[in-house]
Parts: sequence; structure tokens; C-alpha cells
Amino acid sequence: MSEQKETGGTPGAGMAADIADQPDMFARILHGGTDQIRDVAARIADRRPRSVIFTARGTSDHAALYGSYLTEIRLGIPAGLASPSSITLYGARPDLRDTLVVGISQSGHSPDLSEVVRVARERGAVTLAVTNAPDSPLAETAELGLDIAAGPERAVAATKTYTAQLLTLLLLVEAIAGAERGGLDELPTLAERTLADDTAVEIAARYRFADRIVTTGRGYAYATAREVALKLMETSYLPALAFSGADMLHGPVAMADPDTPVLAIVGGGPGGRSMREVLARLGQRRADLVLVGPTSAESTVDALHIPTPEVDEAYAPLLDILPLQRMALALALARGGDPDAPRALDKVTATL
Amino acid sequence: MSEQKETGGTPGAGMAADIADQPDMFARILHGGTDQIRDVAARIADRRPRSVIFTARGTSDHAALYGSYLTEIRLGIPAGLASPSSITLYGARPDLRDTLVVGISQSGHSPDLSEVVRVARERGAVTLAVTNAPDSPLAETAELGLDIAAGPERAVAATKTYTAQLLTLLLLVEAIAGAERGGLDELPTLAERTLADDTAVEIAARYRFADRIVTTGRGYAYATAREVALKLMETSYLPALAFSGADMLHGPVAMADPDTPVLAIVGGGPGGRSMREVLARLGQRRADLVLVGPTSAESTVDALHIPTPEVDEAYAPLLDILPLQRMALALALARGGDPDAPRALDKVTATL
Repeated sequence: MSEQKETGGTPGAGMAADIADQPDMFARILHGGTDQIRDVAARIADRRPRSVIFTARGTSDHAALYGSYLTEIRLGIPAGLASPSSITLYGARPDLRDTLVVGISQSGHSPDLSEVVRVARERGAVTLAVTNAPDSPLAETAELGLDIAAGPERAVAATKTYTAQLLTLLLLVEAIAGAERGGLDELPTLAERTLADDTAVEIAARYRFADRIVTTGRGYAYATAREVALKLMETSYLPALAFSGADMLHGPVAMADPDTPVLAIVGGGPGGRSMREVLARLGQRRADLVLVGPTSAESTVDALHIPTPEVDEAYAPLLDILPLQRMALALALARGGDPDAPRALDKVTATL
Repeated sequence: MSEQKETGGTPGAGMAADIADQPDMFARILHGGTDQIRDVAARIADRRPRSVIFTARGTSDHAALYGSYLTEIRLGIPAGLASPSSITLYGARPDLRDTLVVGISQSGHSPDLSEVVRVARERGAVTLAVTNAPDSPLAETAELGLDIAAGPERAVAATKTYTAQLLTLLLLVEAIAGAERGGLDELPTLAERTLADDTAVEIAARYRFADRIVTTGRGYAYATAREVALKLMETSYLPALAFSGADMLHGPVAMADPDTPVLAIVGGGPGGRSMREVLARLGQRRADLVLVGPTSAESTVDALHIPTPEVDEAYAPLLDILPLQRMALALALARGGDPDAPRALDKVTATL
């Protein structure tokens, strides 16, 4: 892609620029993107959906996970993630009246998502495409569309398109709820301050020779745990296993040992508090623990700490991922990779 | 637990007995358990649910995944998996009229699942508990109950309770659909034949020194990919990363290399056929590939093969997991572990 040439080919320069753009991008979305969101929110509210189904792949699937928590908690509407394959492979044609189906994709070019949205529309759903490409097939297939307006992303690994998806979904849900948005005006400043802290980059050096990593979080933070795991796999080729804190106790905790690095996203609210037992059990197994979150949530277990701002847990995914994107970039470079163009991946992934 | 003492303490004797019981258990469920299923199916059909939400943890979550595919494909009702935490941690109180909420747990003792079912009932849902413990808190909280009747499970790692959950969900969905069940009479015989083949145990020896493994499958087979990953983590402490075939191409394929063992569940139907590109891409990355499925689905890529019977992909999860349970047991023993009582785990896991 032309943007990659413009970076002069320095490995990771594209990803670094994408990451650094996020504070300004938040400001652009907060100031410029809210009209379309209010309009789409009003049209959805008119149709009074009784349930919401998100469909997405890869990084966008983690934005979908965030969106489904927001939908259940803020709107009181049951929400879930659908696998496209029941429709695209097995020909399922579910009755989707009173259902909002949301397809999320930065490129809007995944044929399976377009097919799910096409079938959903035919089966009575209100359909919404959330993309960074308003002229894409997905956006053209859905009845409603939201442009996340992240601007061109230079690296193959998604960073700013992810946080733009999160912020767009947050603004959409708050607009449907008719809520005053509190605390978001500070988001660009908080993002800038979070990116200015180098702790995550220093900690990345410790993972230079790791052969795997475990990430965990609960509630809203689970989306962050999933997203950092994918980022580490696709840029640093580091096998990364993501578990919700509760699922961790139902089996995977058995494999933790002193050679297992664990990144735990621990907020200051209900999700973070529910991680206490998980952290204690990981401590018993003497896992190598790094916590990500506000200092106030620091645990009594022995752990390093990557500080992120103290905000409502519903907003924390917009900030907690920032140092972890920098960690993935630093680790990829330390391992000799080029996170702008990882092996075996293209910017647009088409699955059927 | 007393059953463990009865095995005389030989490591893995309990898990071996649990695995070996599955053909007889299938026969018991097919002959003895169908009245309760028909009754529950009729009561659910009367209420005409417009959507189905499954809630479960660990192994039971993989049965839930299977159930959600069945529900969408066979019943044409949208289905998804819910995380308990939106209700239990953040106090979400979604409107669940016209919704069937299914809690799945072998022990029925997870407080978070009982709380989800309690709230769901209060919010208008039809609720169903699928357990191996009809007197458990979960079963007592739900309006409807199904006893999977797997008999006592000796090992901490769930094996026969998993396949009993799958068969119970399959019979339930087919009863709701009013469909004749085709081909299931042969299930006990096919299970016996599948367990008699030692290929999976021989292949387990190759993983003795593996430091990670990747599992993958699409559609119905994704449940099997997730379940074998968990089994390997909890019994052999082998970090195992499970991906749907489509998600694999959206990032994780980048980490595949000749030192990455990959177990791919590849059936003879639409899910299996959709794995062709995934297998080709893994072949390009020269990953060490083992295929699980009918011989007819064998790929053109270079791979070892664990044979399982050629059946409808909707039934395949009941059989494909059997050799993989034996593989997990063999690997755990080879690594000096005791899969009947893995470190850091109890039979009943209580999460809030």
C-alpha cells in the first residue's frame, strides 16, 4: 500500500504512526462524527430492537464484544456475537424480526460478513455496518451505516481502527440510551498521557524470549485481553492465550507456572474486583504477572504494573489497549519483525 | 472424591474409565433419557421462543457453542452465548421475554450461572438447566431441567459429561423441531469403533516436548477444536490456542511455523470444505499438521490423520472428540501428570 512506501520502509513506522494518531483521532470523532451517530441512533431507537447480534472477525470481533457488553448493561437489551458460519456454510435462515444485526469490519470487504448482513436484512433485521470504508460492500449491504472515520491505517495490524470502533459503538449506545455522555471530553488528553508513559515498552523487553503469554480480564476488560493477545500473535508471532478471568479458573489456570507470563487487565470497578481470586490463584501457581490498569486497583500479589487512567470501566477499553499496542510494536521490533507487514497477513482478509 | 480412591490411585485410571464409558452411556441416553427430553421440548415449543441464549463455563461452554449452532441451523432461531458478567458484575437486567435461556453445567454448582438463570426468569425468559446433577442449585433455579444422566464422572477433567451434554442438546433440538432422528441409533457402535483406534495415542507421543499447540475447525467442528484445547491445557498443561478456521486467517496464522503443531478438525461437509484455504495457508507456513475427521475429507496438504467416522457434521462433535480425549490422557501420563486430579483444579469450580 502507498502509505507503507511513504514511511520510507522503516519497520514499524506505520504502526507507530497509527498508534500515535489515536488522541487526535478521538478528538476528531468526538467533535466531527456525532451527527451521523445521533441520526443512526434515532433510527435504531424507532425500531425498538428486542435483541442485538454482532458479527465480526479478528480485531473487529473484540470491538463487537465490547459493543455487546455495552448493549446489555447500558440498554438492557440482550446481545451476543454470532458466528457467520451457521448462515454462510450451513444455510441457516433465522427469523430476525425485532433484531438489530451489526456487522463490524475496518475494510468492509469480508464476504462472509456481507452475506450475514444480506440474509439478516432479508429475514427482517435492522442492519448496521460499522466500517472505516463507507463505500465498501459491507456498508452497501446494510440498511444503516456508521463511518468510524479513523483515517487511513498504515500497518496491517489494526490499532487506531480498533479504538475508533470502540468509541463509535460507545457513542452510538449512549445516543440510543439518550444519556448525557460524561467524562469523554477528557478522552484525547487521557489517551495522550497514557501513550506518553513508557512502562509497557520497558516490560516488552522481558518478553523477548517468551515462548507464550496468557492474557486475562473480566467484563469490559475481557475485550482488551482478547485484543492484546491477537496483536501479540500477529505482530510478534507470540502464541497468546486470552481467557476471561472466570473461564481461567475453569481449567486453563492449571497450565500456569513460573515460566508463564500473564498480562491481567484489572480495572477499578466490578470487573477488576472480580479478578482478585484469579490473581490469587495465579500467584499460588507463581505465574509471572503484569497488571494493566489504574494504580488504585493494584493487587496484593507480587506483580509489575502498567499504569492506565482511572476511569469508568465502560470507558477503560479505549485507554487500556494503548500501552499494549506499544508493547506489541516494541516486541515485534525486538524480535526482528516488521509489524507494518507481518508475515502471512494482508490488510484485507476475505473469508467466506 | 470417593470414586478416585476406588480407582486405586493409578494416575489417569478415572479419566480412562470415564472415556471408555461413552459408548454405553450413549446407548443409555438414547434408550432411557428421551421421555424427559420430549416433555421439555414440548414445553419449550409451546412458549415459542424468538431467541436462545446459552450460558456456561469451561467444557460446558463448548457444549453451549454446539447447542447454538444446532439452534440456528435446525430451528431457525437466533442463538448466542452470553457472558454472565454483564448480569452478575454490572447488574444488567435485560428484557428477556420470548427468550429461552439455557444454563449448562455438569455440577450445577457455579453461582454465576445460577444468578444468570434467576435474573433471566425474573425478566421473563423461559429457563432451562442442563446438568448432571438434578438436585443442584442451577437445576433448582431454572423452570425446566434436563438431567444428562452421564453417571458419576471420576476425573476432574470432563469427558463423558461433555458428550452427554452434546447428545442431550441434540435430542432436545431435534424434538423441538419435531424431526425424526436419523442415524443416531448407530452412535454407540460408532463411538466404540472410534475409541478402538489407537492412532491418536500414537500421535500424542509426538507432542511430548511440544511447548504449545494450535487447534482449529469451522462450524460444528469449532466446538471440538475448543474442547480439545481445554482438555490439553487442563490435563497436560500444554498451552493450546483454539481458533475458528476463519478467525485463524484474520491474524493468528502469522504465528504458525514448522515448530507449531496444529490439530485441525475437518469434517466431510460444509465446515470441513471451508477449511481448505486454512489448511493451504498453514501448509505454506509449514506448520506441523494433524487432521481429525473422516478419511474422505483428507486434504492435499501434507498431514498425519486421526480417522473418525463419516457422519453428518451436526453429529460429528459426538465422535471427533473421543480420540482427542484419549490423546489428552496419553499426553498427560507421558508428561508425568495425573489427569484425574490436575494441579490447581477442583471438580466443582465456583465463580461469581
